[in-house]
Amino acid sequence: MPGSSKLYGYSGKILRVNLASKEVKIVKLERDLARAYLGGRGLNVARLYYEVPPGVDPLSPENKLFFGVGPVVGTGFPLGARLNVTAKSPQTGILGDSNVGGHFAPELKYAGFDQVVIEGRSDRPIYLYIHDEAVEFRDASGLWGMTVSKTYEAIRRELREPEVQIAAVGPAAENLVRFSGIFFNRSRPAARTGLGAVMASKNLKAVAVRGSGYVEVAKPELFEKIVEEIELEVFSHEQYWPRRVMGTSRILMAANRIGILPGKHFTEPEVPYAFNVSGEMLALKYNVKNRACFSCVVPCSRVFVVKRPGQAFIGEGPEYEALAGMTVRIGNSDLEKALKAVETVNELGMDVISVSEVISWAMELYSTGALSREDVGGLELEWGNMDTVMELLHDIAYRRGFGDVLADGVAAAAEKLGKGFEVAFHVKRLEMIQADPRGLKGYGLGFAVSTRGADHLRSEPFIELSDDPKIGLKMFGVSEATLRLGVRGKGRLVAYYENLCALVDSLGVCKNLAENMNILDYEKTARLIEAVTGMGLSPARVEMIGERIVNLERAYDVREGVRKRDDTLPRRFLREPLKVGGSAGHVIELDVMLEEYYDVRGWDKKTGVPTARKLEELDLVDVAEDLRRRGLIS
Amino acid sequence: MPGSSKLYGYSGKILRVNLASKEVKIVKLERDLARAYLGGRGLNVARLYYEVPPGVDPLSPENKLFFGVGPVVGTGFPLGARLNVTAKSPQTGILGDSNVGGHFAPELKYAGFDQVVIEGRSDRPIYLYIHDEAVEFRDASGLWGMTVSKTYEAIRRELREPEVQIAAVGPAAENLVRFSGIFFNRSRPAARTGLGAVMASKNLKAVAVRGSGYVEVAKPELFEKIVEEIELEVFSHEQYWPRRVMGTSRILMAANRIGILPGKHFTEPEVPYAFNVSGEMLALKYNVKNRACFSCVVPCSRVFVVKRPGQAFIGEGPEYEALAGMTVRIGNSDLEKALKAVETVNELGMDVISVSEVISWAMELYSTGALSREDVGGLELEWGNMDTVMELLHDIAYRRGFGDVLADGVAAAAEKLGKGFEVAFHVKRLEMIQADPRGLKGYGLGFAVSTRGADHLRSEPFIELSDDPKIGLKMFGVSEATLRLGVRGKGRLVAYYENLCALVDSLGVCKNLAENMNILDYEKTARLIEAVTGMGLSPARVEMIGERIVNLERAYDVREGVRKRDDTLPRRFLREPLKVGGSAGHVIELDVMLEEYYDVRGWDKKTGVPTARKLEELDLVDVAEDLRRRGLIS
Repeated sequence: MPGSSKLYGYSGKILRVNLASKEVKIVKLERDLARAYLGGRGLNVARLYYEVPPGVDPLSPENKLFFGVGPVVGTGFPLGARLNVTAKSPQTGILGDSNVGGHFAPELKYAGFDQVVIEGRSDRPIYLYIHDEAVEFRDASGLWGMTVSKTYEAIRRELREPEVQIAAVGPAAENLVRFSGIFFNRSRPAARTGLGAVMASKNLKAVAVRGSGYVEVAKPELFEKIVEEIELEVFSHEQYWPRRVMGTSRILMAANRIGILPGKHFTEPEVPYAFNVSGEMLALKYNVKNRACFSCVVPCSRVFVVKRPGQAFIGEGPEYEALAGMTVRIGNSDLEKALKAVETVNELGMDVISVSEVISWAMELYSTGALSREDVGGLELEWGNMDTVMELLHDIAYRRGFGDVLADGVAAAAEKLGKGFEVAFHVKRLEMIQADPRGLKGYGLGFAVSTRGADHLRSEPFIELSDDPKIGLKMFGVSEATLRLGVRGKGRLVAYYENLCALVDSLGVCKNLAENMNILDYEKTARLIEAVTGMGLSPARVEMIGERIVNLERAYDVREGVRKRDDTLPRRFLREPLKVGGSAGHVIELDVMLEEYYDVRGWDKKTGVPTARKLEELDLVDVAEDLRRRGLIS
Repeated sequence: MPGSSKLYGYSGKILRVNLASKEVKIVKLERDLARAYLGGRGLNVARLYYEVPPGVDPLSPENKLFFGVGPVVGTGFPLGARLNVTAKSPQTGILGDSNVGGHFAPELKYAGFDQVVIEGRSDRPIYLYIHDEAVEFRDASGLWGMTVSKTYEAIRRELREPEVQIAAVGPAAENLVRFSGIFFNRSRPAARTGLGAVMASKNLKAVAVRGSGYVEVAKPELFEKIVEEIELEVFSHEQYWPRRVMGTSRILMAANRIGILPGKHFTEPEVPYAFNVSGEMLALKYNVKNRACFSCVVPCSRVFVVKRPGQAFIGEGPEYEALAGMTVRIGNSDLEKALKAVETVNELGMDVISVSEVISWAMELYSTGALSREDVGGLELEWGNMDTVMELLHDIAYRRGFGDVLADGVAAAAEKLGKGFEVAFHVKRLEMIQADPRGLKGYGLGFAVSTRGADHLRSEPFIELSDDPKIGLKMFGVSEATLRLGVRGKGRLVAYYENLCALVDSLGVCKNLAENMNILDYEKTARLIEAVTGMGLSPARVEMIGERIVNLERAYDVREGVRKRDDTLPRRFLREPLKVGGSAGHVIELDVMLEEYYDVRGWDKKTGVPTARKLEELDLVDVAEDLRRRGLIS
């Protein structure tokens, strides 16, 4: 790459849009940043770190919103269509970051941009229309208040451009619900960490993009060879057909079998009605077609139809998180009502994981009497009462009554009410996903240490579900590492997959390929990077890029106040053993795992702060300097 | 049941047809036989034991052919549409028995019969048309020589009855190929042990059946409840969707992963081209629709289309055995050619497993120089030469040249040529299936002891593939029992599943439900029997029926000369460790497993003959008496 004038795999330009001044700047992608962070998530966090100083109010004009795309996107690489959205999170006050598939990311690349930086705040509702290098600020006052799909349809009607790709926010974001998301093509949300609220706080209702360019790879023959190899592995993978038929919704039955469902707010790890709300049932009764992301060969998204007389509706998905969230987590066994609820959450523009936590948290407190009917504004908050849930979804999105109490997230709700702290299931103020970590201990460690709070998508140690000691022994030298109830080796496992996740999020590749089907390792990724960008890096150097990104994110969080005390899990998972099911008797032995993790990371075991030595080893010399200046490292 | 006048679950009648005298007798089903053997396979072997004395020439008029149907068939029970065909085998000289799905079995029940006994030999080619209690002997001289599908179409045209079900034999059976089968509705063969030759030896080209009756169950409410429970388990089973998309063809990739493919006659347990000939590839490129057996909820059969210009063809299947047999076993990596070969085997009316062995055996001898090109009639018998294979298939079916050498099976071929004995892969003269038992040791034991020779369908210890020690511990008290490379506990495992197979084959239930998805255990089977027949039996009594059937079959084989020395495997599997793949380094420790098996069975460890005590314990007093009279037990 040094000496070469062209940045293969990249569009080579960054778009900076100032919504206050309506100024548009198109600048060259910095070669050194591309080399150090690749693109997407890595490029976004680098810019966030350097451009958004600590202490900025996430909903103020000083926060910035980054859309980043990696070099693999738009090349035709299978499962390579991911976009990363980044900002300071209004929900957690630390790194806000969400990753999404679909068709927006390649379109942005074809328009000519590897990254869009959105700054300032517009004085009135607008949306952006990027077509190639032209950027229009278009009036969105007529769109304000519209649901996600209405917005989508209105913009498509207005632009008369059939291939335009649209990212929009719904009413929840407009009302600054702290867990509102940005929705791409209606049903693909970048929903975690409240980035929808950041976008809406800037009076930006949507971003539409259309491009006519292309992306050139450095070594076309090598690239074709890798694509062929990867496709062969995908098609011949034992998960290929189940994923194609059910997507991630297939996980619900598996989670029931091993007793890790979040039933009734993590009190029922297996439920008798699992099949009725399963991906199998969706496939049997409701799915009508599959839908794939751009250039993907595993069409894992499904369009479903519910043919209820007079109330028929069509939707897309749901993925496992939404499915389990609107069924077992809130004690609901009615699949059609769950599908309706998921559609509603999407239409209002919220993160279904956080929604499922705030509602199931309130339901648990209501069931134990800690919250009375008056406390919740007269709602009947019994487990599985879907009439109440539907009402509450709107109340949250429009910040009405008890909905307003929940609209800032579960940590804030506990603070407002002064109760329910122990059963508020979040880490660093981000709500926990639909897997009980007592039965998936690597996931538990991953939740505790993730740079954006409690979820699986920062490490996704899916290999743990194989429960195969031979793999653990081979990959990490510890057979327990890949046993889901094992403890030893989990630090190594999580760090390995955290680095890999950071890497693929920065390249623009889907985690279903890398972590879930476990097809991309560092060696293959190194070859892929070489084929696309021309950079010849060893597998170890490639892993180092992932490690660099994770460390930069951690440094960002540290600068915002995160320390070892925040790397923890709610008490239930640490102290109360599961009572029934395939993981009965288990809690998480977090301390042991955390110690190993800090060891592997080279972070200070007392504070959880990356050491200067580690940062410098990762070429983050200026970051070490910055933290030192602030007295955070010595 | 005693005291009740009606036999619930049964049609209640037996049809006896004498092809020589053209005499038809309709007699009542014997209540005591139904009670002791249920139906299908059990009822067939009972009648074989008592009606066909030892020493009878299998292709003489003295042999009898039994079509038996179990009580569950025709009730609407899911995966309950199996028919059992039995006779003395012309291929092995012992028990001949094959089990088949489709729509024939319920149709026979609706015509009024639980069993058809075919005796004697017609003086000219005929086919039988059974419509309710009317039986017609129809001229088949015009059909003689026709392939399976031509025969099927000709009979349908002639009878003008759209719902008629047809079992027919092809040219191979007419030419008394010892591994020719009976084909139901074109592509569902009862093909093992050469029953097609038995049928053709009687000048019987086909049996067509049409019924207008129904089957009444004893306890309809209990029955409905069980059906609901079973369907729930089926739909929510992790194998449901893979089975639905790929049927058993899905096994090929799994077999490759664990290194048990029969590549090039069991010398290549994994092959680089596995995906190209896999069930996944079939589903991706060729399958156009699914097809189910009567009342089945897992439509696991697939209709495929090969769109080769000028040579397009449609077919059904193939299952794993056919797929692996016409690809890896003979060194062929061309899927379309394999599909054509499987269709040809079906059209000619042969057992694809035996075909794959005789051809791959000859190819191995050819490759080592043990057979010269002259020895094989000038054929070019290189691995994977599909032109030769297509030629040879016809030569076998029409007994031409080297094909005639192979047409009596691999054991006979080695005897005729005086070579290749050690690599003739059969047990008791029945050719081995497409799984290398060195990597599936329970299967290996199953092959060695099976009452019809080397295959998996007498025990099908599929649970071994789970490789889960917890299941073994729970079911058999030995964790190794369900590890595929384990040795201890295999005797118990195989006996358990042999009894269960005998039971479900006698009830008319599919092994995909009982053994492969592992949904039917003895407790559930007891409830099912009660619901259908009204018999209230404990799970232990129900297992005893299975055990009784296996012992009666063994007694039949013993009467025909089988002893412990026949319970073995070809040398390669006992002495030569696998060199590569997921089971590398392994052979089968047969002696240890066999000793445990005899122990569990209560058979004489020196001779392998069931003890009088065991036979009497199973109410087989007259069988014990018979064997004693013949000096076979003391």
